[in-house]
Amino acid sequence: MSVTAAAGFEAAGVAAGIKPSGDPDLALVATAGRRPVAAAGVFTSNLCQAAPVQVSRRHLRDGRAVAVVLSSGNANAATGAPGRADALGMCERTASELGCATEDVLVCSTGLIGYRLPMPAVEAAIPTLVAGLRGGEEASAAAAEAMLTTDTVRKEAVAAAAVGDGIEATVGGVAKGAAMLAPSMATMLAVLTTDAAVESRALHAALERAVDVSFNQLSVDGCTSTNDTVLVLASGAAGNRPIGFGGPAFHSLGEALTSVCSSLAEQMAADAEGATKLARIVVRGARSVDDARRAARAVARSQLVQCSLYGGDPYWGRVLSELGASGARFDPEAVEIAYNGVVVCRDGVAADHDAEGLAGSMEGREIEVRCDLRAGGSEATVLTTDLTHAYIDENRRTS
Amino acid sequence: MSVTAAAGFEAAGVAAGIKPSGDPDLALVATAGRRPVAAAGVFTSNLCQAAPVQVSRRHLRDGRAVAVVLSSGNANAATGAPGRADALGMCERTASELGCATEDVLVCSTGLIGYRLPMPAVEAAIPTLVAGLRGGEEASAAAAEAMLTTDTVRKEAVAAAAVGDGIEATVGGVAKGAAMLAPSMATMLAVLTTDAAVESRALHAALERAVDVSFNQLSVDGCTSTNDTVLVLASGAAGNRPIGFGGPAFHSLGEALTSVCSSLAEQMAADAEGATKLARIVVRGARSVDDARRAARAVARSQLVQCSLYGGDPYWGRVLSELGASGARFDPEAVEIAYNGVVVCRDGVAADHDAEGLAGSMEGREIEVRCDLRAGGSEATVLTTDLTHAYIDENRRTS
Repeated sequence: MSVTAAAGFEAAGVAAGIKPSGDPDLALVATAGRRPVAAAGVFTSNLCQAAPVQVSRRHLRDGRAVAVVLSSGNANAATGAPGRADALGMCERTASELGCATEDVLVCSTGLIGYRLPMPAVEAAIPTLVAGLRGGEEASAAAAEAMLTTDTVRKEAVAAAAVGDGIEATVGGVAKGAAMLAPSMATMLAVLTTDAAVESRALHAALERAVDVSFNQLSVDGCTSTNDTVLVLASGAAGNRPIGFGGPAFHSLGEALTSVCSSLAEQMAADAEGATKLARIVVRGARSVDDARRAARAVARSQLVQCSLYGGDPYWGRVLSELGASGARFDPEAVEIAYNGVVVCRDGVAADHDAEGLAGSMEGREIEVRCDLRAGGSEATVLTTDLTHAYIDENRRTS
Repeated sequence: MSVTAAAGFEAAGVAAGIKPSGDPDLALVATAGRRPVAAAGVFTSNLCQAAPVQVSRRHLRDGRAVAVVLSSGNANAATGAPGRADALGMCERTASELGCATEDVLVCSTGLIGYRLPMPAVEAAIPTLVAGLRGGEEASAAAAEAMLTTDTVRKEAVAAAAVGDGIEATVGGVAKGAAMLAPSMATMLAVLTTDAAVESRALHAALERAVDVSFNQLSVDGCTSTNDTVLVLASGAAGNRPIGFGGPAFHSLGEALTSVCSSLAEQMAADAEGATKLARIVVRGARSVDDARRAARAVARSQLVQCSLYGGDPYWGRVLSELGASGARFDPEAVEIAYNGVVVCRDGVAADHDAEGLAGSMEGREIEVRCDLRAGGSEATVLTTDLTHAYIDENRRTS
């Protein structure tokens, strides 16, 4: 169970005919009572925001929502005013079936950019979708399935939070994403639910923090899509006193949201298009968190570093060069770089090491590249993958 | 003729044994009279600066130089104090053979990062290198050849400048670079010469401007290497009155420097590792030059755009998404995007076009992607290439 694990939520997924393959492509997550609950969202920073992003932002202004409807196979991005009308139409049709206000339905889409949605097919499928809403494992799996594009597996996660008075609340989530690695087909979407009672502004703050240390630390090709969206709905069914800012319950809920987001992000990286390696780029000893992130992201998104990962080659010279080009401040002749715990560069120059032993460990699927800037006490970790022939093949043509 | 085209310069190239292949790997450009002349340089902005960059910067403080010695196959980067001693040693040995001051010799290296130079071999080859200094075409070709790493062809260019009193001066240059596309093997280096008489500060200003609109507008993998260097020496042999800031002679010299740098940059892009396409990303209608460049570079360095170029697929959705993520300011619903002159996106949405005709033109080697932001009057052009299987193969292992 994932998005239906928290009390008070139901989910469903159907095939509406958006995907030529006939695979499921329309998902819904809704409160069991069809009543508005606290909700929050974090959206792409791209200036070109897809129609559903524009509509969901507006519908979230009051911090409340009843449901999220999601479509896959078509991003409804770069579709202008007609696209906005389509996104709003999805909300209207869903609201009418659910018996709630249009403004209480949020909408997400993912897939190809620049094409209009087949609205008659989508609208025809919505009554079936709403009629299919259920709690339980099958329902969350169906919703998770209907969100996918080039993903090969569903992404689901769940965690618990201590929300006061001895009450344990649940946080669950579903996501899709061959991640930032293929924003063309693969805008990243996630929907989280919790049965904790929480004020919507506190929920938003906790979500922002969770996204910041999970999805925002995942980089495959450095592309920020037009559709990225992470939403959370809090039903309050756990019966705790509503959580505001600060305090142990706020902290515990934040940890649970972070745990779910981090798990979903790792599942995305593991399912990355064409990837044969999952690499954790750790930068420590930075002068600030900002410097640490800047440096880790520069290494993670380097085509040359990614090619070396594909070859299992611990060529630290490229890593050092990317650190130097990142804008982070440090002394190049103090840097230490280690692959899988083996130090290959110390004080900015080559370090003697067991090359044969390291070559063996580089053959594994997971690789850790640890860079110590020795300039301060801050650190950051970014997940990335290798750059492979298969990635190119998946992305050279859309048709 | 290129680097020896301007009166007062000689060049040479030899195989010193740095490259395991035995190919030429040591080059020299020197003033014919072995006397210091006005000189200027532009260096990498990478915080991790290779030893030769550090030494050349210091030697250029007085704005004068006699010669530039260049080695290929080893970048002498991330080599610490011993590496700096090696770079200085190359200058010392060259100066002693030329009969000039060590501080008047500049040094450049390109190749693998993290390895010490084989100094005995380099020092043993320098007397032969200096003895081989000649004017004429063969000499400049020999120098151009000895600079190369993964390049498949020499890069040479020449242009003329009207420097006053009816005098025409010559600007010539040689360069190496599979460019920013493989900074591991391929730090980008260029040496220019001119027989114009010019004050060194004016020469520096003209060089900075020329680099800014040529090499700095070339992006293949967005990596800024540890060794990038562009140098110019001005012999004054043309006999014109020394050029200061401003005026038609300064302008004409600047144009000639720009022409040579632009030609060398285009030659680099055309010889890019593994590339099958050469793409010109033109952004116009931007609110500022800074916005135009930011937007053009974001499109040029996008792995997804580069994959589409490889597939000959005019998938403008990726281009629009990169424009939106670039930080440039514009209205997404005003943007026009054209491939090879065919408008595929108008007012931010799909535009009807002759898809079959466009598919045919996308099969050619050169592709123009023109983006009109319709937000102002500034524009910028960036050259890039496609991302191919061959690029990955060339970069997955260094050995």
